Amino acid sequence: MDGYYAWMIVATALVLMMTTPALALFYGGMSRSKSVLNMMMMSYVALGVVGIVYVLWGWSMSFGPSDVGGVFANPFSLFGLEGVAGGSYIAVCFQMTFAVITAALISGAIADRVKLSAWVVFLPLWVTLSYFPLGHMVWGGGFISQHLGAQDYAGGTVVHINAGVAGGVLALIIGKRVGFGKEPMKPHNLTLTMVGAGLLWFGWYGFNVGSIVLAGGGEKADTRQFMTETGVTFLNTTIATCAAMLAWLAVERVLHGKATSLGAASGIVAGLVAITPSCGAVDTLGAIVIGAVAGALCAWAVGLKYKMGLDDSLDVVGVHLVGGIVGTVLIGFLSTSSAPGGIDGLFYGGGLGPLGDQVGAAGIAIAWSAVCTTVIGLAIRHTIGWRVSDEAEVEGIDSDQHGEAAYDLGTGLGRGLPSSGVLAATQGRAPVTEGAPA
Amino acid sequence: MDGYYAWMIVATALVLMMTTPALALFYGGMSRSKSVLNMMMMSYVALGVVGIVYVLWGWSMSFGPSDVGGVFANPFSLFGLEGVAGGSYIAVCFQMTFAVITAALISGAIADRVKLSAWVVFLPLWVTLSYFPLGHMVWGGGFISQHLGAQDYAGGTVVHINAGVAGGVLALIIGKRVGFGKEPMKPHNLTLTMVGAGLLWFGWYGFNVGSIVLAGGGEKADTRQFMTETGVTFLNTTIATCAAMLAWLAVERVLHGKATSLGAASGIVAGLVAITPSCGAVDTLGAIVIGAVAGALCAWAVGLKYKMGLDDSLDVVGVHLVGGIVGTVLIGFLSTSSAPGGIDGLFYGGGLGPLGDQVGAAGIAIAWSAVCTTVIGLAIRHTIGWRVSDEAEVEGIDSDQHGEAAYDLGTGLGRGLPSSGVLAATQGRAPVTEGAPA
Amino acid sequence: MDGYYAWMIVATALVLMMTTPALALFYGGMSRSKSVLNMMMMSYVALGVVGIVYVLWGWSMSFGPSDVGGVFANPFSLFGLEGVAGGSYIAVCFQMTFAVITAALISGAIADRVKLSAWVVFLPLWVTLSYFPLGHMVWGGGFISQHLGAQDYAGGTVVHINAGVAGGVLALIIGKRVGFGKEPMKPHNLTLTMVGAGLLWFGWYGFNVGSIVLAGGGEKADTRQFMTETGVTFLNTTIATCAAMLAWLAVERVLHGKATSLGAASGIVAGLVAITPSCGAVDTLGAIVIGAVAGALCAWAVGLKYKMGLDDSLDVVGVHLVGGIVGTVLIGFLSTSSAPGGIDGLFYGGGLGPLGDQVGAAGIAIAWSAVCTTVIGLAIRHTIGWRVSDEAEVEGIDSDQHGEAAYDLGTGLGRGLPSSGVLAATQGRAPVTEGAPA
Repeated sequence: MDGYYAWMIVATALVLMMTTPALALFYGGMSRSKSVLNMMMMSYVALGVVGIVYVLWGWSMSFGPSDVGGVFANPFSLFGLEGVAGGSYIAVCFQMTFAVITAALISGAIADRVKLSAWVVFLPLWVTLSYFPLGHMVWGGGFISQHLGAQDYAGGTVVHINAGVAGGVLALIIGKRVGFGKEPMKPHNLTLTMVGAGLLWFGWYGFNVGSIVLAGGGEKADTRQFMTETGVTFLNTTIATCAAMLAWLAVERVLHGKATSLGAASGIVAGLVAITPSCGAVDTLGAIVIGAVAGALCAWAVGLKYKMGLDDSLDVVGVHLVGGIVGTVLIGFLSTSSAPGGIDGLFYGGGLGPLGDQVGAAGIAIAWSAVCTTVIGLAIRHTIGWRVSDEAEVEGIDSDQHGEAAYDLGTGLGRGLPSSGVLAATQGRAPVTEGAPA
Repeated sequence: MDGYYAWMIVATALVLMMTTPALALFYGGMSRSKSVLNMMMMSYVALGVVGIVYVLWGWSMSFGPSDVGGVFANPFSLFGLEGVAGGSYIAVCFQMTFAVITAALISGAIADRVKLSAWVVFLPLWVTLSYFPLGHMVWGGGFISQHLGAQDYAGGTVVHINAGVAGGVLALIIGKRVGFGKEPMKPHNLTLTMVGAGLLWFGWYGFNVGSIVLAGGGEKADTRQFMTETGVTFLNTTIATCAAMLAWLAVERVLHGKATSLGAASGIVAGLVAITPSCGAVDTLGAIVIGAVAGALCAWAVGLKYKMGLDDSLDVVGVHLVGGIVGTVLIGFLSTSSAPGGIDGLFYGGGLGPLGDQVGAAGIAIAWSAVCTTVIGLAIRHTIGWRVSDEAEVEGIDSDQHGEAAYDLGTGLGRGLPSSGVLAATQGRAPVTEGAPA
Repeated sequence: MDGYYAWMIVATALVLMMTTPALALFYGGMSRSKSVLNMMMMSYVALGVVGIVYVLWGWSMSFGPSDVGGVFANPFSLFGLEGVAGGSYIAVCFQMTFAVITAALISGAIADRVKLSAWVVFLPLWVTLSYFPLGHMVWGGGFISQHLGAQDYAGGTVVHINAGVAGGVLALIIGKRVGFGKEPMKPHNLTLTMVGAGLLWFGWYGFNVGSIVLAGGGEKADTRQFMTETGVTFLNTTIATCAAMLAWLAVERVLHGKATSLGAASGIVAGLVAITPSCGAVDTLGAIVIGAVAGALCAWAVGLKYKMGLDDSLDVVGVHLVGGIVGTVLIGFLSTSSAPGGIDGLFYGGGLGPLGDQVGAAGIAIAWSAVCTTVIGLAIRHTIGWRVSDEAEVEGIDSDQHGEAAYDLGTGLGRGLPSSGVLAATQGRAPVTEGAPA
């Protein structure tokens, strides 16, 4: 019985690792070199702020005993984890890491232009109004779990649709980066993005295979059930992601002639997003289909922002909203009773009922997140304001907000050309002593 | 009983992480900056393609019920995992990650010059002809396990000798990089290589300590056996790698005067390779000896490619073939009945029998891989062709195959000297607004 | 029962990962680009050397059966792990990784100026004289555990105070870097430092949650105890670190006007250090207080080195000594009988006894480490010497000691400006063929 628990410890550490450093790397590499530190800081600060908030009232609002109208639970009944004990601590930590990464995901949509202070104010407001209630509705015994039979194992609605909508709304409220659409804003370090995608994949096993264990009742589950459910979930997570990566690369090759590393990294995340809600609902074939559809559709969707003039800078809408909807809705078609969830979807003779449940859950998540984020986003806009000055943005938000530059790849003495000094050093010459005295 | 299973979930995630991002980092850092993305992509794409193939017919060919002449099993009997259930899913995923990394290892021998399309065609052919049959022969009840008492816990033959031979054969068939031997082709970012080596070490515990659990019968094993076998394997893996790193550095110091970080990273991998087959066969002293021999021998072997004119670009032959042979053959001398394997080698009074088994298994693996890889390599050479044009190779394969550059470390606006702009930004000046308008 | 053991396998791998690559990244990013490889090598070499030494006599000196005056155990009774068996192997490996990272931590205080040979000589001497005895005194049944009721779950005294004192003493003995206090010595790559901090946090769960399991008796513990102790420890580790990061950033904002990414990374480590001894002694509120105090105090303390003229280059004293003392001493105030440790501190009605125990343990650790390190440091200074030449230091220790440069971000052909070549390549031009022939 303690094996499932040992796994939950690991799973929780893995999901924490997904935000810091994995997501910070994934987003940081896609930023420009003048704003990579700020991008990474948005993830790290999300962990700090949401971590504290979750312990204070987040757990109580999401999973506390006093349901309020099916929307949230009383934030004070377990305030500060008063009354929590035993094996529940790891469940608290596990769920905390989900709130953290959901908030952090939003930052990709508003890269390079937001004051750290505005982000610090936004975080507790948003998780309190949008995330904790949605978590309660879907997983904590609230409205959606009461009235819809929707399946969402690891957060297609609560995490990805929620973050995707919030990112889109904030991008609209906050506005475009200076120069958006006029000058290239290319990733400054794709090796970081590739590493981030790889570590996200690694951590996502904690995310999905941890969630199926909690959903299955944790310590109440017997060993055979534990093995089957985790095995199916692990396999589905892996194979959907393989399919999504290949699908994204194929679409790129067809549309643009070349398959890119940014596409591989993005395809990985799109596949992981789509299999998140569905990891326990489908079989191997279903997982491949969901991954392939998500990879292809997201690869196409990320191009829309330029046509729509929406500066969703690092494609939170195109990957998390679109991928989240794909994964959530396709459950209605591809869910099968041979999977742990035990529900047949439309293609397996289950009729339209499951599809309706999935569409309903997705719709509620979209509406809830849109309303909450709009209210908070406008409130901040009209009070402390979101943006740094245009001058600061052009100069670089790392310098403006943090007083730092990510890289100093010269000789460390601030003299000479950066790389030539390094090269010279490898050739046995002393670039410093050649020049003027220190 | 579920503790061993919890560990297998973690082990599988760790081995997947070894390819993406660990191996991609290790190889990517050793590439030149104009080809790092392509190098990393070869690992990521290997995961995508081999992952799908493994689910379709790889598991069936390796571990399916219908042995065909001791060489492979019927690929259709468990096609698409039809008929697989329960606790076996995690075994499928675990073995899948081994096939993935073996294929990805080969890419280091043919860096900087291969079309992505050729790599995508090579992958399914090679795992089908070379990897799945060897896996069946050694671990799936095939020829080698039937006729030889050879020990290979985690893949000295199936993984490292197999990949090492394939890398050498392909390097020969595909030919040298433009400028090989005439101009320096130094690693472009050794911090990536160091990180890759560290993460490979971390993941290798999944590789070796996961394999010993599966070899020991998994859920059939009792807790005491589980503890002893995993403990010995963990210790052997650690201590052999420490010894190999130090041995490599010592050889470098003696031969070249300086111990390098590339040597430390390479020594780590050499030690891990050599302890892979032997992790359950030897005691602490044996592990130290195997590590030290592998580190020293590989440090010497990687210099041979220049004398032989073989452009095994990132030393797949020198590390994986040599290290794999060292680990596989030394079992014949150093295996001891006090280790989990329970077999005494030559130095422990077991006579020449075990040595003969180990040499036989290594020989079969070398021959099998050489023949299969030659056939596939020549077939691709004479049909779609392996190489990008010389112009594309000189310009940079990242640009040619992916339309990307790994780094844009300037100010993000493509103006001014890269680092000076960053430095200026930290000093509070705005490099952008000083210059000409965008 | 085997679930706790599965966790110990993972925990051990995580702690090994903390040194390589996590600490190497954290320190490497803070170094200058001309010395990053040497900085990373100090961690990697520490793993190689201390790993071997630990197996030979480290385990025997720390946890062997023959106590010598409460100070250490006979190094020969379990020499080479002779007589160790079964489930103890993983405990050996777990403890080994603690010795490794403690030694590696010291390297941050003496960055950029120490010969690799001096470091290789220092490592076995220091762990033998300082670390193994302290480990025996605190955890192995020696003096401190006999005479003081001090709590130190994961190494506030043995690891952090020990390393912090040693770093300060060596910085004094070895002297300042050339130019210290006169020219800026800024981190050369803060993305590496951020990643290192994130991976350290991830690995620290192995550190703390693994230690509580061993402290609780491991396999003797029942499942309920296993769940409660690990859950509390996991939560405390998380929440203290969140609080420390935010506190550090707040202090920076107040003192210097801007919250930095280096501050976030440093705050994370400060919080992890302070919660290390106390992770099993306090409740949620206590963990938040300890984290916040550590973050704030360390943020202030790292500025002192400039006033004191002590070139503790990467703040080993300011973070590990100060953070270690904060965590160790605050236990005396904040320890509560509702936590796994079951001891009430001053604020919970336990009187001054626990506080005295904690101060005593900290004092012994400080004195022991100071004496041992002074003896070894002076011995090396007056024999083989610590430092590279001033010329080598200015030129770059990577070149001098390793013959390498970390980065070659040009086109790989050593021609043209590094980044402009890369940029040109992405724009479809061939920088190589344009210029003069190679």
